Amino acid sequence: MFSFFSCLKSSELMDSFEEASIDIKMEIFEVIEDNYGGVIVNMKKEEPMDFLKFHTMLKASISHWRLKGKKGVWIKLPIELAHLVNAAVKEGFWYHHAEATYLMLVYWIPHEIPHTFPAYASHRIGIGAFVLNQDGQVLVVKEKSGDMTGTWKLPTGVVDEGEDICMAAVREVQEETGIETEFVELFAFSQSHKSFFGKSDLFFICMLKPLNFTINKQDAEIEEAKWMPMEEYASRSKVNQSELSKMIANICVAKKEEQYTGFSALLTTTGHSAKKCYLYSNNI
Amino acid sequence: MFSFFSCLKSSELMDSFEEASIDIKMEIFEVIEDNYGGVIVNMKKEEPMDFLKFHTMLKASISHWRLKGKKGVWIKLPIELAHLVNAAVKEGFWYHHAEATYLMLVYWIPHEIPHTFPAYASHRIGIGAFVLNQDGQVLVVKEKSGDMTGTWKLPTGVVDEGEDICMAAVREVQEETGIETEFVELFAFSQSHKSFFGKSDLFFICMLKPLNFTINKQDAEIEEAKWMPMEEYASRSKVNQSELSKMIANICVAKKEEQYTGFSALLTTTGHSAKKCYLYSNNI
Repeated sequence: MFSFFSCLKSSELMDSFEEASIDIKMEIFEVIEDNYGGVIVNMKKEEPMDFLKFHTMLKASISHWRLKGKKGVWIKLPIELAHLVNAAVKEGFWYHHAEATYLMLVYWIPHEIPHTFPAYASHRIGIGAFVLNQDGQVLVVKEKSGDMTGTWKLPTGVVDEGEDICMAAVREVQEETGIETEFVELFAFSQSHKSFFGKSDLFFICMLKPLNFTINKQDAEIEEAKWMPMEEYASRSKVNQSELSKMIANICVAKKEEQYTGFSALLTTTGHSAKKCYLYSNNI
Repeated sequence: MFSFFSCLKSSELMDSFEEASIDIKMEIFEVIEDNYGGVIVNMKKEEPMDFLKFHTMLKASISHWRLKGKKGVWIKLPIELAHLVNAAVKEGFWYHHAEATYLMLVYWIPHEIPHTFPAYASHRIGIGAFVLNQDGQVLVVKEKSGDMTGTWKLPTGVVDEGEDICMAAVREVQEETGIETEFVELFAFSQSHKSFFGKSDLFFICMLKPLNFTINKQDAEIEEAKWMPMEEYASRSKVNQSELSKMIANICVAKKEEQYTGFSALLTTTGHSAKKCYLYSNNI
């Protein structure tokens, strides 16, 4: 029987094998290599792929990465490719994290050693604002919903991703009460666990200096807002609040009497790229 | 033409409609209602469901929740049900967050107002440990990988979810150098942004008191570890490190000379459930 290969010289035969080999390589995902022996696959929403092709390429790619001694595999899947999630999970991938527009999956090749994938963000950051006016009154609010409904309390809020703590305190006070302020000092913080979806919380108490005094409260979240004499705020805190709230009220009293020093905020730079960051410390 | 309905009396016809209506109601997801006009669907890995049934029930459920005036919809999908992710995305859901074992999707019903879903964890927490022995020497390490390879630096590490900052500092020093310590004071922290996967970082500098002095370094991450005279540490920091590192070194010097006060850690309780938490503040 006539064979196609028999027409080819030996070198041509080799070329043909190499081409076949190149075809197989084409079916392996392009990756970015990280500094820890890992590979990152960035799937593109502009390049849709069907389930079967993705699944087949993923199997082939894992075999290839295993041969190359790779450890961690990251796949970033845009939400537009949500139909591919299950293919990765079938191959043993699990979820590392998700943001609104994508899901990050991970897989660890060397089964004999535990994975070393770094953890994602673990904490939510909150602020409480101690705003004292020239008459010795503190700015307090009552919230419309939540655990503290009906209780006069310091304005509080959540620090956004990418937002500086000192700026978040100023923003929250402005939003909730209309009072413009400037950051003076951070005078304490607490850390607690098993909060929102099991994550941990850090809560920073900031002292702010008011720049205006007429309250213009926000209606959506705030029932009432007013200036309360410091003595009344301190005595209310002793009655019906948590140990932490009482301790914070004590610090507020000490601060009012100028017997307390917290941390100032200083804008500086960090790292090789001289990225801007705030350092909070006692002035030296 | 003979009609099935014509055999039924009017009341029977009504019953038959009501049964049909009950059947439709059966095809709506069970939910937990939250305090903000939202509903939470907790899909169970023990109750597998095919794509089509899930998709059909989801469409019916959204119509039902819309009629009831519901706002936010949360669906928690265990990774075992990864084949259902795309059905939710087709209906307009997006990702809120993911942990290793599940994906949380959200959908906002009232299109005329912006969603109010709270953000997930936004920050990673790191610690740096300033450990000073009785000879005025500071504990320093050289790491095997990362940005600071080859530089003598304070031991650093990531605070685990659920871990107290003061405990994390003690753990990291023990893991990297074998030195047992106790927490003394937290004397500064920095906040920076656009770090790991775009999240923000908080980095806390803790002073620890060593309880033993013989270094037994960890080999996986640490190239070298030693006690370095404080003067040498301070002068090295002035030459080749970031502004932030220089400022931290200055605080370390001031602390050594007892001219600096940071925050102590005090175990207390917070909230209605009297959950334990640490308050970090200047002693008053």
